[in-house]
Amino acid sequence: MNFKAEIDVMPLPALLDPQGKAVSSNMKNIGLEEITNVRIGKHMTLFIDAKDAAQAEAKVTEACQKLLCNEIMEGFSFTLEEA
Amino acid sequence: MNFKAEIDVMPLPALLDPQGKAVSSNMKNIGLEEITNVRIGKHMTLFIDAKDAAQAEAKVTEACQKLLCNEIMEGFSFTLEEA
Repeated sequence: MNFKAEIDVMPLPALLDPQGKAVSSNMKNIGLEEITNVRIGKHMTLFIDAKDAAQAEAKVTEACQKLLCNEIMEGFSFTLEEA
Repeated sequence: MNFKAEIDVMPLPALLDPQGKAVSSNMKNIGLEEITNVRIGKHMTLFIDAKDAAQAEAKVTEACQKLLCNEIMEGFSFTLEEA
């Protein structure tokens, strides 16, 4: 079976996010001072071949831990759907 | 009212994504050859003060078009929830 995973990798809440801070403070320059607290991370989509959803979930978790996410600074979450 | 927006900005499907390609081809080096077609974009969260959901949606769309997304190369989608 083929699954599609949608993965979000975000800076941990306890850490500063300088890129997000820069964007937040620029919102007022474009007339959008109502927008605050921007945080920026990564969004990834991938396809995975697995015999069932549990195996797909295990593989995606392994990919996140080994390659896609630096768990010292980032956290990840994902959703799986059949493709 | 205060809303939280979750925004995904992804490279357009018609365009090559070299970062995603590099990650895809590295999956087999870490024993995850079942994973293919990785595409990498940005995930952003922000808070917005607006009088209702429709106004919040309009503001987030404006922020995406003006600052967060380069619509020549990227597309965006977002969800809103009350914070």
